[in-house]
Amino acid sequence: MLSEFDLIKRYFQRARPPSPGTVLGIGDDCALLAPAPGKQLAVSSDMLVEGRHFFAGADPFQLGHKSLAVNLSDLAAMGARPLGFTLALALPAADPAWLDGFSRGLFALADAHGCELIGGDTTKGPLNICITIFGELAPGQALRRDAARAGDDIWISGTLGDARLALAWRLSEPVLDAALDHDMRAQAAARLHAPTPRVALGRLLAEGGLAHAALDISDGLVGDLAHILAASRVGARLDVDALPAGPVLARQPPNLRRRFAAAGGDDYELCFTAPAANREAVVAAGVQSATAVTRVGQIEAEPGLRLVDGAGAALDLRLQGWDHFSS
Amino acid sequence: MLSEFDLIKRYFQRARPPSPGTVLGIGDDCALLAPAPGKQLAVSSDMLVEGRHFFAGADPFQLGHKSLAVNLSDLAAMGARPLGFTLALALPAADPAWLDGFSRGLFALADAHGCELIGGDTTKGPLNICITIFGELAPGQALRRDAARAGDDIWISGTLGDARLALAWRLSEPVLDAALDHDMRAQAAARLHAPTPRVALGRLLAEGGLAHAALDISDGLVGDLAHILAASRVGARLDVDALPAGPVLARQPPNLRRRFAAAGGDDYELCFTAPAANREAVVAAGVQSATAVTRVGQIEAEPGLRLVDGAGAALDLRLQGWDHFSS
Repeated sequence: MLSEFDLIKRYFQRARPPSPGTVLGIGDDCALLAPAPGKQLAVSSDMLVEGRHFFAGADPFQLGHKSLAVNLSDLAAMGARPLGFTLALALPAADPAWLDGFSRGLFALADAHGCELIGGDTTKGPLNICITIFGELAPGQALRRDAARAGDDIWISGTLGDARLALAWRLSEPVLDAALDHDMRAQAAARLHAPTPRVALGRLLAEGGLAHAALDISDGLVGDLAHILAASRVGARLDVDALPAGPVLARQPPNLRRRFAAAGGDDYELCFTAPAANREAVVAAGVQSATAVTRVGQIEAEPGLRLVDGAGAALDLRLQGWDHFSS
Repeated sequence: MLSEFDLIKRYFQRARPPSPGTVLGIGDDCALLAPAPGKQLAVSSDMLVEGRHFFAGADPFQLGHKSLAVNLSDLAAMGARPLGFTLALALPAADPAWLDGFSRGLFALADAHGCELIGGDTTKGPLNICITIFGELAPGQALRRDAARAGDDIWISGTLGDARLALAWRLSEPVLDAALDHDMRAQAAARLHAPTPRVALGRLLAEGGLAHAALDISDGLVGDLAHILAASRVGARLDVDALPAGPVLARQPPNLRRRFAAAGGDDYELCFTAPAANREAVVAAGVQSATAVTRVGQIEAEPGLRLVDGAGAALDLRLQGWDHFSS
């Protein structure tokens, strides 16, 4: 069996020059970062547990990708530029095939974002992946949850609900169109297992001062948007029929489409608010980052979230977000 | 059952003004840190797994203390000033008594070091505690593992081996003096379950430029010192009889005393190297930080670690460090 040190050396320690900003990487008691003068550091931790955030036996390459993607998505939601991350890993065994796939998936996404592995920990235990990520941004530019203002447009990046559809298929939920063909299923599964963090869009929104509040949609739009409303002490009107359903979900019956787009979960899209005066600039940021952006509602002074259909009539979808301790 | 948000709010979100350096704490996609101008950031992650790093049913207050202590110990080993930490926690259930004890133990130590909880994650899963800690220090001051030089003295903070003795007692290993009384056992157990991170000493050594290399002893002195020797491409001579045995271990037979002091594990003391010219200053730093410091050997140009007894004769203790994947 591989020793802990051999494991780190073989799969996670790469012979590369440290990136600017990293003074000392893997191998000491601490890593050393040198943030650019005057910049703030954005920090986020996410823990992924087998059987909870991913299925037992999940493809290790996709799991490596997803583990970092959900953290990059947190940086995107603040508008920060990725710098580096630490990885703490509990493994039932040091399985070379698993480690090879996991580390390749992890580093492929890390390299695409110039985000370096700077340290971490490995131990034996039930499979658990804990990543802490670091990004930088200029003071005052962060897209905070408490910054939405009445009159702001509400925007969504990309599309919603295909990840939830893939989960329903995986769990054999009785909601699905039996005619869903293999390609459609694979397309939806990719959204669940290999989400795309919207880093470029988040940075353009923050650096250009285009948006007020933002977060990434991980537990379902309606539940996550409620965090912005609470932190900003505002309400909102959300046009459920304007939500950009994923291409697979778009072929499903209207009620399912509405539910999975509004409260699916695992979307890792950005939900952000921006002044109406910035509409053209937001669309341009979407074009520049090759990320679709869709206007889906408005922030209002009156507290509460009002769901409406395409004709403006009130909708009651009996939706709920995802809570890790209530199920 | 408590929801994830209630759990965070009740046990981990405290109504306190953010500390200097923390722009935004718990509750957004990321926390925001503003490092002091010109300072570097030291970062370390440790993952503690039930049944591996602590016993099932461990006292939650002590566990909260220890989880942060092992991370503070990594900052101490670099000589960094603690700033803050993130906590990712997988829990089998949201047990109020456990959460109350754990959070009190955690915050008692955090407050003693001015180290703020800035963010994290909670989820359901096999008990797993992952902390990432942040400290700051001036460029060039970090006590790195690759900085030992031939001729340096080797120093140890505090005492060694009592934690290992407590583990032996807990595991009913057949090595122990049966006459060990209750007070002695409790004293040793405190070293295992509630280690003291040597933050003040580490900072004095780094800020005063007194030491070259340092690390914290978590897996046993001999195995950990080997990391300094390898990174610095030097060797060492270690006087095993000069090792400062803990007060309980000091009453044990010489062979056990040597083995547990030299290769016990879970000591969380500092091992550091310093030029002979700094001997008085190192002793003064020990006095100032109320931490015993003991000179136990010397860095030599010739590779390899040579263990000797009090008379200078070669010793073979057949020691080995602790590897998480070989046992």
